[in-house]
Amino acid sequence: MVILTLNCGSSSVKYQVYNWERHEVMGKGMVERIGLPGARIENSSLNAADFEQERECNNHTTAIQWILDTILDSTHGCIPSLDQIKAIGHRVVHGGEVFKKSVIINDDVIATFEKIQGLAPLHVPANIMGIKAAQAVLPNITHCAIMDTAWHQTMDAQSFMYALPYEWYEKFNIRRYGFHGTSFLYTAKRAAVLLGKKPSETNLIIAHIGNGASICAVKNGVGYDTSMGLTPLEGLVMGTRCGDIDPAIIPFVMDKANLSAKDVDSILNKKSGILGITEKFSDRRDVQKGVDENDSRCILAQDMEAYRIKKYIGAYSAILGRVDAVIFTAGVGEMNPNIREKALSDLENIGISLDKEKNNLSRVRCSETVISTDDSKVKIFVIPTDEELVMTEDTYALLNDSYDVHTNFEYTFQKKEYVNKERQPKLEKLLKEDPSIKKILP
Amino acid sequence: MVILTLNCGSSSVKYQVYNWERHEVMGKGMVERIGLPGARIENSSLNAADFEQERECNNHTTAIQWILDTILDSTHGCIPSLDQIKAIGHRVVHGGEVFKKSVIINDDVIATFEKIQGLAPLHVPANIMGIKAAQAVLPNITHCAIMDTAWHQTMDAQSFMYALPYEWYEKFNIRRYGFHGTSFLYTAKRAAVLLGKKPSETNLIIAHIGNGASICAVKNGVGYDTSMGLTPLEGLVMGTRCGDIDPAIIPFVMDKANLSAKDVDSILNKKSGILGITEKFSDRRDVQKGVDENDSRCILAQDMEAYRIKKYIGAYSAILGRVDAVIFTAGVGEMNPNIREKALSDLENIGISLDKEKNNLSRVRCSETVISTDDSKVKIFVIPTDEELVMTEDTYALLNDSYDVHTNFEYTFQKKEYVNKERQPKLEKLLKEDPSIKKILP
Repeated sequence: MVILTLNCGSSSVKYQVYNWERHEVMGKGMVERIGLPGARIENSSLNAADFEQERECNNHTTAIQWILDTILDSTHGCIPSLDQIKAIGHRVVHGGEVFKKSVIINDDVIATFEKIQGLAPLHVPANIMGIKAAQAVLPNITHCAIMDTAWHQTMDAQSFMYALPYEWYEKFNIRRYGFHGTSFLYTAKRAAVLLGKKPSETNLIIAHIGNGASICAVKNGVGYDTSMGLTPLEGLVMGTRCGDIDPAIIPFVMDKANLSAKDVDSILNKKSGILGITEKFSDRRDVQKGVDENDSRCILAQDMEAYRIKKYIGAYSAILGRVDAVIFTAGVGEMNPNIREKALSDLENIGISLDKEKNNLSRVRCSETVISTDDSKVKIFVIPTDEELVMTEDTYALLNDSYDVHTNFEYTFQKKEYVNKERQPKLEKLLKEDPSIKKILP
Repeated sequence: MVILTLNCGSSSVKYQVYNWERHEVMGKGMVERIGLPGARIENSSLNAADFEQERECNNHTTAIQWILDTILDSTHGCIPSLDQIKAIGHRVVHGGEVFKKSVIINDDVIATFEKIQGLAPLHVPANIMGIKAAQAVLPNITHCAIMDTAWHQTMDAQSFMYALPYEWYEKFNIRRYGFHGTSFLYTAKRAAVLLGKKPSETNLIIAHIGNGASICAVKNGVGYDTSMGLTPLEGLVMGTRCGDIDPAIIPFVMDKANLSAKDVDSILNKKSGILGITEKFSDRRDVQKGVDENDSRCILAQDMEAYRIKKYIGAYSAILGRVDAVIFTAGVGEMNPNIREKALSDLENIGISLDKEKNNLSRVRCSETVISTDDSKVKIFVIPTDEELVMTEDTYALLNDSYDVHTNFEYTFQKKEYVNKERQPKLEKLLKEDPSIKKILP
């Protein structure tokens, strides 16, 4: 049986093809520039050469048909027949307060998404478009929705309420929702495995640092607080998003620079963060190169990014009372030891002790690693995330009527013997090249 | 010699009359409703009965003349002759990046305030008006300016920069400034005395919780980070201000509720915070009464306020690396043990251990108290603030050419033998009534 997962943006669709029996990713890829000149697909298959193609692609239906053509192709595809696909898991960015877990999509669910979409106008309309397109192309299989916000629905009011007029919550649903939930779920469950505890026994701080970035406090195995809010703008310094600022800056700069609210919203989301400070880069690899070359703006941007992460680690240490582990995940979190070092140094007073040598060794994505000192009260893990696997397993379980909210459900990756089949051969190769890597393995 | 201090708002002037030789407050009071019907003065003098009066008062010049008439009055006043006043210290809320310490006011200084005033349009224009009015009434004495922001000018760029387009900093001076600096200076110096250390040897976290509220990280005796930002809106949950929110809420709610930026700015400053959540109270005494009566909104508001303070204590514990003491000050910080208990409980993992019994005893403003357990790594102090004394001492030193930035200057209240003459008799009376208070004295 094959489970397909889809992550639809306004002009892109990412996909993954997963063979359930073999617990293996058969293929994955992305269509970009939907509705624009130069639309293209990139596909990689487990047992075939990588494939790229350009062609006209005016909408999501065409994009999904293109994906199916590609993965079925006898040369570069990964499955022999469409019949193998038994269900599709769709990523939906915002589930509002309605969805506390993944669901099978029916007309009511789509109607609810349509009602909620104003909370994430850049994302949810595209998610809905993707669902409808996939349903049009594959009408007879099960379609499921996996929401970024569902994980965070366990937050208490003191965490999710803003100190704003209460009626803004009642009338406009203004509250903290949080995002990256699927990633937090995966890494929280894996951290419990590494700690040798049940998830319900773990208190964790998880920093998901990619181009977008957020951090989550996990108490007794469930989401307790998080840095992103009503939208993904709040919290950490991100590639192009400002994160936390004095809200009074918005009316101030609207007046000073004669900008509309929409202008400012766009600048805060697309021209701020690392890009705003460096005035040239948002990719942290470019910033790292700048830091290495002593570029003062790159140094400032990296310092600010790490400093903000450090503040959140402290804040969440305070509200959790006991922390078992701090986890770094996602592109930057997994691969940039410099940001981790700046964020995690000199935290012995709050029980967190980084082993700088181990931290420097952890810059590959092929294994979970431990980078705290042996005597650190709080462990520090780097855990490569796997949102697609969560989407796949939720979809499989929904299809088989074995699904429940994550606290009542066991994922395959919660088993002690779980191994990521894609990463394992890379790790083995790496260990041969550099046996010192062994020091950081769990 | 008498030093007069003035704190001018748009429709009010607070004042204090200080006898330098006797180190004693001779009188203090406030004119309210300047330019409005029902303008009134309230005055209290050390050796006379309290006095209240209503009369027409159309501007700050009239208000200051009224104050002088009152303090010179033979019945309820406190000084016999205007000649005794040798200098006036004026509170100025915003000094931008220009003023890193207090200054003698001349035409250049006023011109600079006029340039800066856009950064705090509700406060600085009133401050300037007050200075000009006082100069008109008392042209031949020294006038000094004491800025709320000066204390925070030691912050590093990683603390004061926002992750916004860099040119907003260059063009519009958008950065974190911080406020309540005079209060942080006073309490930081007093905490050093209580710790038996030089200020430069101390790392502190100071929570100034009044109707407005902010928190400051002090590293090696100087301001290192603070929760208020470009304006006093950012940070903690306050009486009517929201503190930290997702900035994207502003464009979102402007669109949903059809509000202008100015409308939203006003709501975030005046209708949010504790008032927004409870929909009835901003005064924490009312909220406490509500909590005691099990009012769910009051409980939520107090939980949110304390939770936010706790997060900042954690964040600042992380960035400081070592913390010698946490200090609570200002009206709520000094008098509400419930908020302190919620904010300070279960922080043993970050070295902070509250003695709940001692905390409950500390609800009077007549002494500094210690409310941590004996074995707490981090001490917890409640220190009644005294912003007027800092203003007075800066003014005296400027007048006598003995002033310098606080790191090169010793205040009288830094002496071990310093006693607050207003509070001492109240403390002695209280100790007779309730000897258990002794347990919390330093």
